[in-house]
Amino acid sequence: MKEFFKVTELNQVLSYADIFQPVEVEKVSVFDTFGRILAENVMAGENIPNFNRSTMDGFAIRASSSFGASEANPAYLEIKGAIGMGEVPEFSIGHGEAARIATGGMLPSGADAVVMVEHADFLDKVTIEAYKSVAPGQNVIIEGEDIQESQEILFSGQKIRPQEIGLLAAVGRQSVKVFKKPLVAIISTGDEVVAIHESPEPGQIRDINTYTLYGQVLKAGGIPKPYGIVHDNYQSLYEICQKALHETDMVLISGGSSVGARDFTIEVLSNMPETEILVHGITISPGKPTILANSAGKPFWGLPGHVVSAMVVFEAVTRFFLEKIAGLSLKYHQRFYYKARMTRNIGSAQGRVEYIRVRLKEENGGLWAEPILGKSGLIRTMIEADGLVAVDMNTEGLEKGEEVRVIPL
Amino acid sequence: MKEFFKVTELNQVLSYADIFQPVEVEKVSVFDTFGRILAENVMAGENIPNFNRSTMDGFAIRASSSFGASEANPAYLEIKGAIGMGEVPEFSIGHGEAARIATGGMLPSGADAVVMVEHADFLDKVTIEAYKSVAPGQNVIIEGEDIQESQEILFSGQKIRPQEIGLLAAVGRQSVKVFKKPLVAIISTGDEVVAIHESPEPGQIRDINTYTLYGQVLKAGGIPKPYGIVHDNYQSLYEICQKALHETDMVLISGGSSVGARDFTIEVLSNMPETEILVHGITISPGKPTILANSAGKPFWGLPGHVVSAMVVFEAVTRFFLEKIAGLSLKYHQRFYYKARMTRNIGSAQGRVEYIRVRLKEENGGLWAEPILGKSGLIRTMIEADGLVAVDMNTEGLEKGEEVRVIPL
Repeated sequence: MKEFFKVTELNQVLSYADIFQPVEVEKVSVFDTFGRILAENVMAGENIPNFNRSTMDGFAIRASSSFGASEANPAYLEIKGAIGMGEVPEFSIGHGEAARIATGGMLPSGADAVVMVEHADFLDKVTIEAYKSVAPGQNVIIEGEDIQESQEILFSGQKIRPQEIGLLAAVGRQSVKVFKKPLVAIISTGDEVVAIHESPEPGQIRDINTYTLYGQVLKAGGIPKPYGIVHDNYQSLYEICQKALHETDMVLISGGSSVGARDFTIEVLSNMPETEILVHGITISPGKPTILANSAGKPFWGLPGHVVSAMVVFEAVTRFFLEKIAGLSLKYHQRFYYKARMTRNIGSAQGRVEYIRVRLKEENGGLWAEPILGKSGLIRTMIEADGLVAVDMNTEGLEKGEEVRVIPL
Repeated sequence: MKEFFKVTELNQVLSYADIFQPVEVEKVSVFDTFGRILAENVMAGENIPNFNRSTMDGFAIRASSSFGASEANPAYLEIKGAIGMGEVPEFSIGHGEAARIATGGMLPSGADAVVMVEHADFLDKVTIEAYKSVAPGQNVIIEGEDIQESQEILFSGQKIRPQEIGLLAAVGRQSVKVFKKPLVAIISTGDEVVAIHESPEPGQIRDINTYTLYGQVLKAGGIPKPYGIVHDNYQSLYEICQKALHETDMVLISGGSSVGARDFTIEVLSNMPETEILVHGITISPGKPTILANSAGKPFWGLPGHVVSAMVVFEAVTRFFLEKIAGLSLKYHQRFYYKARMTRNIGSAQGRVEYIRVRLKEENGGLWAEPILGKSGLIRTMIEADGLVAVDMNTEGLEKGEEVRVIPL
């Protein structure tokens, strides 16, 4: 009997991400930026800090006044005053002089270092002895040391973590341009699939893929929009696909892994305006029967019906496209992986990238990846899994003890 | 001069998390469960699947009918009918008989395996020849193979990932009990700190800690509630602390790293009802001047003022408490770390756990951690960092090439 599709190599499939353009930009409050992708470069409008700032509680001095000071031979310094937090000192510091200063306080002119309070004692109200010498700049953040005026510090395409939120605050940005979160349509198909509030009759099964994909879209920074279950009917599938494509930035049809259902998806895509089928099968396992089309500039996916297959394809392929249209720049997007060693041999067919579900465990100070075997229709295997290990298409498998990269799940 | 506080060892500080109880429980739609912590055990109300299900397109047969079949010597099978998706077959299969079946279809009684469509050919309308033998159960998910009726499959305290959302769908749960997200008060202190919409005068600096902590609370699964900036004034700090404690599940005061401000925080905590100061200083660096109190059963933190110190304390200590009150169970909460090798020697004082900011890079197939040096008042160093490496309190530092665990940032 016929092969249903010609398969495309994984790397080739991933390269199609270049076709698709990021979604639009919106301006959001700095409080709403966590996890968002910057859509502008950010620079500082002034030096940060805009003054020489003490990093310790102690005494602001001219460093040279302390040179050679020790427990046995302290430096004697005359107190010129105390510096209030947030205030500009109204006096300057000369050789042999000092000013009381707290962490975060502004150094007076003439002062270039701070002696820690632990390293000095009062002799009387206006004199201290310092037991340690300090170098110029010691215990001080100098003006512009954190960020210099007009320096670009954050870049379009960068994902915003807590520290980037802090930096936006530091430069006084109450709002900032970010890419909108891509809206992703999720359509489940299959005559055997029923909604989760229904009790499946024998032969029926509840819709799982809508929910796993819903979570995966959220996790990857998109906004999922479920369109429910479409039965294996050309006309209704065509209509819902048109609607979904019109309303969202990317479409996922899941299920339809039976020949008939797959044929419907292909037929619908073949008849949709401005639509080119780019991929009909990928050299990965599970997940081979995956379809990717470019429909009016939007990625349109036919994902496998088996829950594990759909999740693996999303993780290994679809997520990359979602991040691309979300505006994430590869430049700021180095992905790091857990390294682990295989607990046992695992065979793999050549000619395709095989994704093995693994459970991770720390043992003898090392991280071990234990393969979870089981059919790709079993959601339970994904519950037990901590990650995926990709077995390269040019190898025949992995050996016990071999070091592998783990994609966390 | 005096030492300001007696320090507590990190492990001792972490053990205080046991004191605090999880927040309340709420029921949410399955669509709102991503990243939430389950507050009930979940079991299946029926077998999943509730029938023997084909995992391939092909022919349902009694496996024994195919034994010995090969290209040269195919098995001949009589087609009894075709099985529609979602339907219960109205016939059974005996020896030498077959039924057309699609992926996800229900096996007729008598059938125990599926011959893939690729391994069979029609001889005429009612007869196929099968070229490969199948074992009983092959290409089939048997009833209950994924999840058995009454089996507990998800547990209170577990964090919900996309696959757990899928499992909730599989067992028909439209809503589920989860722990509420802890509400976390954030208070910034310091007379030198101004709001981010203000232009800092010399001596002043914009409030950064509110924003970094806001992001860290979100990242850790809490809901941040900023209370703005309180100046170094006992009465206003007392009032805002009382209000924050009343309205939220955990309080973070940041800043106040100067002696005076620290004293205010301690004084306020000493005078608050039902409040016990548990920790006044931790053996970590940066982050030593950290205060932890138990105030009416809620964790109350005095975090350092330097932005890096506050972030490190949150990551190394506070987050653990937030997760505890968020209901996360340690049992389902094994944390995995990136392993990397140090690019250079780094010295560290004994007697405290030192957290080194590092940049990660992939080189020669290995992951390397490059220390980022810089004062703990510099937010820039956290922008450049991919993670933290903890240097144990009993070592004098790390050597170039030494393998370390990286806490991702």
